[in-house]
Amino acid sequence: MARVLTPRAEDFPRWYQDLIAKAQLADNGPVRGTMVIRPAGYSIWERMQAEMDARIKIAGAENAYFPLFIPESYLKREADHVEGFSPELAVVTHGGGKQLAEPVVVRPTSETVIGEFMAKWVDSYRDLPLLLNQWANVVRWELRPRVFLRTSEFLWQEGHTAHATEEDARNYARKILHEVYEDFMVGVLGIPVVVGRKTNRERFAGATSTYTLEGMMGDGKALQMGTSHELGQNFAKAFDITYSAASGGVEHAWTTSWGTSTRMLGGLIMSHGDDNGLRVPPRLAPIQAYVMVVKDGDGVAAAATKLRDALRDAGVRVGLDDRVDTAFGRRAVDAELKGYPVRIEVGPRDLAAGNAVVVRRFDGSKTAVPVADVVGRVLAALDEDQQKLYDEALAFRQSHTVEVSTLADAIAATATGWARVPWSAVGVDGEAEANGQGVTVRCLVRADGSVPDSQDEPDLVAILGRSY
Amino acid sequence: MARVLTPRAEDFPRWYQDLIAKAQLADNGPVRGTMVIRPAGYSIWERMQAEMDARIKIAGAENAYFPLFIPESYLKREADHVEGFSPELAVVTHGGGKQLAEPVVVRPTSETVIGEFMAKWVDSYRDLPLLLNQWANVVRWELRPRVFLRTSEFLWQEGHTAHATEEDARNYARKILHEVYEDFMVGVLGIPVVVGRKTNRERFAGATSTYTLEGMMGDGKALQMGTSHELGQNFAKAFDITYSAASGGVEHAWTTSWGTSTRMLGGLIMSHGDDNGLRVPPRLAPIQAYVMVVKDGDGVAAAATKLRDALRDAGVRVGLDDRVDTAFGRRAVDAELKGYPVRIEVGPRDLAAGNAVVVRRFDGSKTAVPVADVVGRVLAALDEDQQKLYDEALAFRQSHTVEVSTLADAIAATATGWARVPWSAVGVDGEAEANGQGVTVRCLVRADGSVPDSQDEPDLVAILGRSY
Repeated sequence: MARVLTPRAEDFPRWYQDLIAKAQLADNGPVRGTMVIRPAGYSIWERMQAEMDARIKIAGAENAYFPLFIPESYLKREADHVEGFSPELAVVTHGGGKQLAEPVVVRPTSETVIGEFMAKWVDSYRDLPLLLNQWANVVRWELRPRVFLRTSEFLWQEGHTAHATEEDARNYARKILHEVYEDFMVGVLGIPVVVGRKTNRERFAGATSTYTLEGMMGDGKALQMGTSHELGQNFAKAFDITYSAASGGVEHAWTTSWGTSTRMLGGLIMSHGDDNGLRVPPRLAPIQAYVMVVKDGDGVAAAATKLRDALRDAGVRVGLDDRVDTAFGRRAVDAELKGYPVRIEVGPRDLAAGNAVVVRRFDGSKTAVPVADVVGRVLAALDEDQQKLYDEALAFRQSHTVEVSTLADAIAATATGWARVPWSAVGVDGEAEANGQGVTVRCLVRADGSVPDSQDEPDLVAILGRSY
Repeated sequence: MARVLTPRAEDFPRWYQDLIAKAQLADNGPVRGTMVIRPAGYSIWERMQAEMDARIKIAGAENAYFPLFIPESYLKREADHVEGFSPELAVVTHGGGKQLAEPVVVRPTSETVIGEFMAKWVDSYRDLPLLLNQWANVVRWELRPRVFLRTSEFLWQEGHTAHATEEDARNYARKILHEVYEDFMVGVLGIPVVVGRKTNRERFAGATSTYTLEGMMGDGKALQMGTSHELGQNFAKAFDITYSAASGGVEHAWTTSWGTSTRMLGGLIMSHGDDNGLRVPPRLAPIQAYVMVVKDGDGVAAAATKLRDALRDAGVRVGLDDRVDTAFGRRAVDAELKGYPVRIEVGPRDLAAGNAVVVRRFDGSKTAVPVADVVGRVLAALDEDQQKLYDEALAFRQSHTVEVSTLADAIAATATGWARVPWSAVGVDGEAEANGQGVTVRCLVRADGSVPDSQDEPDLVAILGRSY
């Protein structure tokens, strides 16, 4: 088979770009740093949304929608926040043919405008917790854009909550971290994320704690797949989000925010893709089984349609390719590129023997299967390959992570993967030194793998890596 | 019961604003003309999206996402289009702390940027039809904003398709009009829309035909609920969307676009709302049945929870209100405002007699029903009241529409509703005259109610009305 993509081992970034183009996942937009998400990519994002949204609702948050345009003055109310986002803002100066009295910024994130409305809506402790989420586009001007990973506009969900106590806010930020994000990434995306705490240097602009989920990509680099923040009372004070307590006094609320974005599409590609294209985990896949008519022949189209229907009736998300006027080889290459977990090839020769061929994207294995057994075989393959993708990614991460005891060894190890090193051997000075060499502390974890409350806890482990 | 809203008969616009505020559907945003859609409003929008999206997918269109930012130069390529939208544009002049070389506009609609990519993606007749849709926010600067009806930013879906022939494009624009929009508006929203053709004066900037669905609101005015456009080859020529035909030559494609927006929330309120609040048609309602604990008492909470579960098991979207620390009257007023189709009130007295009280939002009727019969009664009420809301709106429209034969009579009739008048009695001059008096030709229909191919057909009926 002719080589379709630049091999990963030859040039990983090039492979990534090739795959996105050839699998028709996305294109670069006309304005620098923007992207067009094509149907093959967007259908995966819709499945991510559906899975995430269900978990967010179970966690009790309600969806709402806040404006794209934010008065510039709002951003200035929280000092760290404005400092963090100013360099990335897009500013609207003209509207309706006139210069605006006050320029408005295109939201880079919505803590400020949502803070303003939380202040209006929260009156008493009975109004708390206030648990909101929105699905929206945001804009952060990118000088070195890369599709899905860093784009000037991206799609995301951003959750924003207000609580009566610090403890309640902390518990909720962690509930989202584990029950929504980790559960989705491990269980659906099949990516063995490490869940930890960002250092003070790396935390979100305006937060008191930032929790993160870090995935190892196929080149050994780290991708921040999602974050959940405790904002303390910073935004509550900046926007005057107060409530009358049961005890009678007036108190500032404690807020959180948390987000995941179309960047997860980049993580999906770089975690599971191979030299033939994408491999979409079965639980995520918009098309889990793809029935292909190899070529016309006696009863072939009818048999393919019947298999499609039987799979659909069994609850499988199924597609049918009967474009026999296009060469089968070309269609098969395209199916590999798009990463459908299982293909069922129906051709005259196999069908004459009562068989169809089941091809598993995970390992490329092809098996002739009696037509009557296809549904059962597909269901089993979908279950197994979900687990195998995860296991493979976990094994890769483990084999590309080293335990070291010095900063120098840790930095050296990031050439091929991650380093686990005692945080006490790094510290804030060592962190700055690593940054100077393009290496970041991805997160801090406790020795038992749990998430610390502060970077000042003893015996923390720092995970160092390179990112995009 | 104390008056909660300004009565409709007293001041309809004030009633509308009151309802939106008191039912917590939306708030005005901080930047003029923008809005915040609160959870009670957004959950209805999500249901609209789900119902529409399913129909759009059945019609064969695939979702994608195109950038928010469009180079100013793109808009200028189609002369009518730029003329139509220029006065409403928001312009970004600064990004990432620097002045941009070329200002970018925030999309008011996406024909231009999608046209650019259709030209890239379409090569041969085999690539056609290309059927795309996106769910997105758009910006059109509004000088006289009104929540949901005219806002500077709104949410919508916009479909964009390219076809090999004019006939195929026309058929698709009409398929969407009838099978997606009319089917949804009549069958789910319960709004008896009139489906017709816009006059040349009223058609979309850049279109050759604009089809529309017009709803009559509770004050007799007209609301354009959605539109579907044939764009001819205007955008195909401006963006060079060409394909090699089966016959060998290179041809320009024919394109369509079609959209519906959060404006439908305004239409919902003004079609079905009454002096006590919103009435959401059962098929649309995010919460169809709302189980309320009237007050604590022997087994009351358990009975309410059991009813909630039984309704859920029967496929009903159900909510439970057990906030007994808030006065029941206040909660009941809130449930009326939010328009839940059926309430099930569970209190100690009725429960002692083995009953719960079923309250129908449509007519306010209250019936004590044996607990074992509640599920069946609720299912029947949901079915019936969907139809009754539609019937009531249809009767209202019919009683507020007059048949007249002159322009003067037609204009006079729009004081209270719509006029049906021969288009030959209006014409382009009469249309301009009506516009001068704040009256528009909402659409043209044939005598048999079907949709004309041109405003030059004989024997067309013009429907005149006032709008917002």
